Amino acid sequence: MPDSPPDPVGAFVPGPRAEIAGAPDGPLAGLGFAVKDLYDVAGWPTTYGNPDWERTHPVAAATAPCVAALLEAGASLRGKTRTVELAYGLTGENVWHGTPLNPAAPDRFPGGSSCGSAAAVAAGLVAFALGSDTAGSVRIPASYCGVFGIRPSWGAVNLAGACALGPSFDTAGWFAADAAVLARVGEVLLPDPAPACAGPLGPLLKAEEPWINAEPGTARALGRGMEAAEELLGRALQVTLAPEGLDQLYEHFRCAQAQEVWATLGSWIEATRPRLGPGVRERFEAAKAMEPARAAAARAFRRRFRARMEALLAGGAVLAYPTSPVPAPRLGIPLGEQNAIRERTIGVTAIAGFAGLPEVTLPVGRVEGAPVGLSLVAGAGRDRALLALAARLARALGLPG
Amino acid sequence: MPDSPPDPVGAFVPGPRAEIAGAPDGPLAGLGFAVKDLYDVAGWPTTYGNPDWERTHPVAAATAPCVAALLEAGASLRGKTRTVELAYGLTGENVWHGTPLNPAAPDRFPGGSSCGSAAAVAAGLVAFALGSDTAGSVRIPASYCGVFGIRPSWGAVNLAGACALGPSFDTAGWFAADAAVLARVGEVLLPDPAPACAGPLGPLLKAEEPWINAEPGTARALGRGMEAAEELLGRALQVTLAPEGLDQLYEHFRCAQAQEVWATLGSWIEATRPRLGPGVRERFEAAKAMEPARAAAARAFRRRFRARMEALLAGGAVLAYPTSPVPAPRLGIPLGEQNAIRERTIGVTAIAGFAGLPEVTLPVGRVEGAPVGLSLVAGAGRDRALLALAARLARALGLPG
Repeated sequence: MPDSPPDPVGAFVPGPRAEIAGAPDGPLAGLGFAVKDLYDVAGWPTTYGNPDWERTHPVAAATAPCVAALLEAGASLRGKTRTVELAYGLTGENVWHGTPLNPAAPDRFPGGSSCGSAAAVAAGLVAFALGSDTAGSVRIPASYCGVFGIRPSWGAVNLAGACALGPSFDTAGWFAADAAVLARVGEVLLPDPAPACAGPLGPLLKAEEPWINAEPGTARALGRGMEAAEELLGRALQVTLAPEGLDQLYEHFRCAQAQEVWATLGSWIEATRPRLGPGVRERFEAAKAMEPARAAAARAFRRRFRARMEALLAGGAVLAYPTSPVPAPRLGIPLGEQNAIRERTIGVTAIAGFAGLPEVTLPVGRVEGAPVGLSLVAGAGRDRALLALAARLARALGLPG
Repeated sequence: MPDSPPDPVGAFVPGPRAEIAGAPDGPLAGLGFAVKDLYDVAGWPTTYGNPDWERTHPVAAATAPCVAALLEAGASLRGKTRTVELAYGLTGENVWHGTPLNPAAPDRFPGGSSCGSAAAVAAGLVAFALGSDTAGSVRIPASYCGVFGIRPSWGAVNLAGACALGPSFDTAGWFAADAAVLARVGEVLLPDPAPACAGPLGPLLKAEEPWINAEPGTARALGRGMEAAEELLGRALQVTLAPEGLDQLYEHFRCAQAQEVWATLGSWIEATRPRLGPGVRERFEAAKAMEPARAAAARAFRRRFRARMEALLAGGAVLAYPTSPVPAPRLGIPLGEQNAIRERTIGVTAIAGFAGLPEVTLPVGRVEGAPVGLSLVAGAGRDRALLALAARLARALGLPG
């Protein structure tokens, strides 16, 4: 095996790195990409970010169909990227493999759980990278690292051959430094829109709570994004999404997710007793202890919230709000402070997470030098139209793409 | 543990059987149910129908959320039912646990892969039973055993804590001897319909190819079902679904499914080298050998077929056709004959399988004393309306419900 290509930001899983050339032609020919190390690539281990996972799971016998589709479309795989272990964290920290550097703000977290994929794209090591998003794991690192990212509609992209965290929330998303590349990848991975989802997007809705929840500096930095979006779609209508409060949205999301996480990974954890890093360990303990009645209430809330969002967005309306309430937190802040940011963040990411909506984040602003993203969110199944809108907005703002 | 309740048809996984009482009240109070042994129940092994799977997987630490939802709704779990190993077969044969008896036609196969769930319902041991359906694994045993069955819209029911076979095809379905019970379970497990899916169903479409594909006796036995459906929805319009032929539909389905099956289970199979029964072993060998280019062509076909079905059914139209081209095959027919029936069957089950559509099968007729089912198929997300229509049709036909 030749020497591994350079990795100045620690985006890739440590160790020698194989590459797989894509098909000689195809819509993604010439583009290099990376995949979060929870997607299987035949002949490679899938670490899921944790040494005990790697130890107790065989090397992959097959390549995940979504990765295969990218190779068939001409893109070349440059390697597998670091992930928060078991994808259960938003800072991007991995104590086993090392935390990738945030290329846009080196004294801050890269965001997670798809930390390596975001860092690889932000550092220009690849044109795009696959991540996965359950509670914000593409959207948050995209915002923190200043790149484009999409969490597609739930179920839109095939997750066969990918490690699960919470199946009814899990999605395969991706990052790009350029809105046009973000959309081109969508042409390969996304299904054709159903007739009900083929219409134009609009009107623009300014979702009240995530703007109030955002730090004033973040909200200010995204103002020019809202203005440009209004130039494209007309004056935004103000809407209330969650009269019960984003803290309630967070709390329900936490409980519904915890039940699924434990149903998905609890058997392995109980049988293996893996080493787990700080934060991750506590979240799995909480998942194990989740009261069934509490989880049932969260599922009931989810059903109502989903119906509310579907009714709001059925005609093609697009929500706009800050992807994250804050820029990337500085490295080394205490765990308690990290958790407070986590709660405030998931109150927002739960909107698309609960309702299975597609969300694209654009690197619109900076706060104290650190990037912050503006999200556009549409009805389920409108991913392609949303990517096209994001590309128009990026051009209007002078962003790449 | 008390003695296990009687199991005259061999529906349940062999060995002592625990029961779990449901919540004291709720919409399903008083109903007993069973779950296919690929759903986790905390403290019980999940065999997935194969002794090597059981040996290499820990006892479940958590209960699958869909099973938990049924218990919370008041239903009581009576045990776990036999499945074709790894859910990869349609006859219902399991050489390790024993093949359940078809209570409606004891000299014939029960159908699979959810064989034990269908048999338990047909024998009156439980009011309803969870199965799963990837390529027909609820619809076919429902038709063979003469009970109602639903394969819901893909993604409608949470599959956390369930073993996967082909994630982009897998669905959690269920059986009942009574159309009203089938619908009541849907009220618990299905999401509320999106606004675009809330309208009335109709017109009725008679899908040409599955009727031609069916044996004349089967088509004849279902005639009264079509007549009753026409009385409810008006004269059926004849439509062509697959001008390329059902054999092409089968062939594409086989290839797309094989790629996913190998991506999902290939690593375990390569690492474990499990004992696999006849038919199942050959299918996994074929899945391993699947050419990537062939699978890519199958995925491309799937995308086109899905768009075609979505356009056809977007306004609320309902397809009607024979669930299976034949009644249950007789026990002991040669493997080659079984495989020919399998191909002819999947050419039909692939319609809803490829397009993620909900399908309800009703026990409408009999051929030489063996049951055959009539299927109603609607656009994705219209599950509740479809269940309501099936209940109306059942009443019109004098079937239970």
